[in-house]
Amino acid sequence: MLVVQKYGGTSVGSTERIRLVAQRIQNTIARGHQCVVVVSAMGHSTDALVDLAKEIADVPDAREMDSLLATGEQVSASLLAMRLVHMGTPAQSLTGWQAGIATEDVHGNARVTSIETARLRQLIDSGITPIVTGFQGIANGNITTLGRGGSDTSAVALAAALHADICEIYTDVDGVYTTDPRVVQAARKLTEVSYDEMLELANLGAQVLHPRAVENAKHFAVPLVVRSSFSDEEGTSVVAITEQTLEGRQVVTGIAFERQVARIAVIGVPLQQHGLATIFSELASHGVNVDVIVQSVVDAAAVDVSFTVHEPDLTKAVGIVESLQESLHFTRVERQSDLAKVSIVGAGMISNPGVAARMFVTLRDANIAVHMVSTSEIKVSCVVPADDVERAVKALHVTFVEADAEASLSEAGSAVK
Amino acid sequence: MLVVQKYGGTSVGSTERIRLVAQRIQNTIARGHQCVVVVSAMGHSTDALVDLAKEIADVPDAREMDSLLATGEQVSASLLAMRLVHMGTPAQSLTGWQAGIATEDVHGNARVTSIETARLRQLIDSGITPIVTGFQGIANGNITTLGRGGSDTSAVALAAALHADICEIYTDVDGVYTTDPRVVQAARKLTEVSYDEMLELANLGAQVLHPRAVENAKHFAVPLVVRSSFSDEEGTSVVAITEQTLEGRQVVTGIAFERQVARIAVIGVPLQQHGLATIFSELASHGVNVDVIVQSVVDAAAVDVSFTVHEPDLTKAVGIVESLQESLHFTRVERQSDLAKVSIVGAGMISNPGVAARMFVTLRDANIAVHMVSTSEIKVSCVVPADDVERAVKALHVTFVEADAEASLSEAGSAVK
Repeated sequence: MLVVQKYGGTSVGSTERIRLVAQRIQNTIARGHQCVVVVSAMGHSTDALVDLAKEIADVPDAREMDSLLATGEQVSASLLAMRLVHMGTPAQSLTGWQAGIATEDVHGNARVTSIETARLRQLIDSGITPIVTGFQGIANGNITTLGRGGSDTSAVALAAALHADICEIYTDVDGVYTTDPRVVQAARKLTEVSYDEMLELANLGAQVLHPRAVENAKHFAVPLVVRSSFSDEEGTSVVAITEQTLEGRQVVTGIAFERQVARIAVIGVPLQQHGLATIFSELASHGVNVDVIVQSVVDAAAVDVSFTVHEPDLTKAVGIVESLQESLHFTRVERQSDLAKVSIVGAGMISNPGVAARMFVTLRDANIAVHMVSTSEIKVSCVVPADDVERAVKALHVTFVEADAEASLSEAGSAVK
Repeated sequence: MLVVQKYGGTSVGSTERIRLVAQRIQNTIARGHQCVVVVSAMGHSTDALVDLAKEIADVPDAREMDSLLATGEQVSASLLAMRLVHMGTPAQSLTGWQAGIATEDVHGNARVTSIETARLRQLIDSGITPIVTGFQGIANGNITTLGRGGSDTSAVALAAALHADICEIYTDVDGVYTTDPRVVQAARKLTEVSYDEMLELANLGAQVLHPRAVENAKHFAVPLVVRSSFSDEEGTSVVAITEQTLEGRQVVTGIAFERQVARIAVIGVPLQQHGLATIFSELASHGVNVDVIVQSVVDAAAVDVSFTVHEPDLTKAVGIVESLQESLHFTRVERQSDLAKVSIVGAGMISNPGVAARMFVTLRDANIAVHMVSTSEIKVSCVVPADDVERAVKALHVTFVEADAEASLSEAGSAVK
């Protein structure tokens, strides 16, 4: 089997941990597999480089920042390869350009465009394990980086290009849980989630895998496994879910939540003004990320629109919206802070009506107010008071995970959506 | 003018110093020059990387060591380019491979074989200052390093390839002195030395410039200047010396010295055995550097040979020589430690007989024993007791530098060699 293994910053955080990672790679090879390894920078070394750059310039040049940050992975890759060679396992470190990872010609957040695998193939065929620097590539002879979670993306892209049998993401948690175990003691590790579920869970705060990496894995059908580099426990598989595998699964896979949510409502936006387009374009151009958007028609001539932003962005966002009042002629802007978002996620929802209703009933029974609702095919999100978020997650975990563990799908299906 | 500037580790030892270097580069450009900059790694950052490698393996793999160490210069080059861009001076950092620096396919001590200057030329012509990582190159797609003093070599190689008008080596001393100012207060900075003089001075302990860089500068006729990055003082020019410029120069340019010298004498080596070749080949293959070698014929059938080694190598060297006694049939091995070497260096010696004699007279008058003598066209070296080395340097500095400052060449020429 050809295995791509990615080790995150914590997993290679010290020379001692690099030794353990080398041992794990050697064991994988001893079991008869071929390995391609992708590493992040050691622990907080990237932060140290960022601090240096800040001492040099308030807004460091993006090209130079990439060249600076890329050294972090080069250090960990060299040390890991050095350790493997020392242990008698042939290995070679490869930087982004050496591994043939071509990206868009942008800095700080480039996307991988193609991988020239000739050199990697040659190493693998010669029994030499390539240790590839994550997070980086090359464009027009310049070093580029892939942005946050970039090493996950590198690993998935390499697995896709090499047609690897599996891509193992080693991190400091041992898999994906039904919800945050710090909030719900009964949270349990999932043996399997779908790419889409993982995307919703990743976006909603289960920061185990970067969403872009999951998207790519889905697109190229790369089987992923998330597991811990500190134990030998089985991790969580992230896979495509077919109609067949869907049968017998729980309706809800996990409960995600997000704190620091604020709501902005724009009241009485005249319909003929294309006001919505203007408002959200303006917010985007100022770098304000908008999450849930809910619109309702007040009368034939105007709409009310509500949306959530990350709480620290609230004042800025309200300022931007208010600056548009004169041109858009809306009535007023309202704001509400101290909110949170709680979501149930599960591919099984598609074929199970009534899931949303069970969520509302659960929250009502727990006496938790719901300020906004948003749904997708595999997710229902409710905006609730920040103070109630942990109670909401616990109650929903009981309803959908703990109780459902014994419940049948047909039972869930009998509820009214 | 096209100026190559090389900044050593101390000169870029902190972000504050990098800011000062950026200012100096900007000033050079403001005076109408084009700049290509070569940087070493920040301060002791290379030592930190070496320490990491030692935690990974007793004998780190050479390829991975090069890849690891190369990050040091990449960090300083990125930060310096970042600073220049921040100051409004267009600049781009280039690693060894980006700058087109091809080397031999060996690790740890590669020689530059060629430089593909297209990218550098393009940047220079576009008004963008290239900031090149010193000490490193590329061979067969692998990162190589040039060994100790490698950044000097990079700078000279780039100056030669780009036909630069001058190569300025910025360091933490303000030039080359007639001798070590810590030993002789009257030591004065030289405005000019020849490549050959610089080579002898560099080899003999004035560690301002790496000998290989001086050799290359001589070979490609690159005009060098050694100066301080901490002041605006004029430095020392290292140039070719012609018959014309030789006239009017002092006979002796500088007094070099080296401590920790030990002497080994092999007595009664039979002539027919090719014993010398065996002895010195054996020492070389064990990594023992031999410096002064003196041989004298005892009778028609045997020779005595004496040579010096670095004192810490003495026991090892004696052991190697003694192990050859059975096969080479020499009489015995003698050893002497606690020695030092003092040398007078000057291109003017070639045309001035009697310089050696004046050296011996000076040492005799100072009551200093001379154990070995070795001469080249521009150097006379004497091995003396370690305890006497500072007195020897002072006395020779008086004779050849301080007194000669007023003396004429013809006067020196009248002495008998």
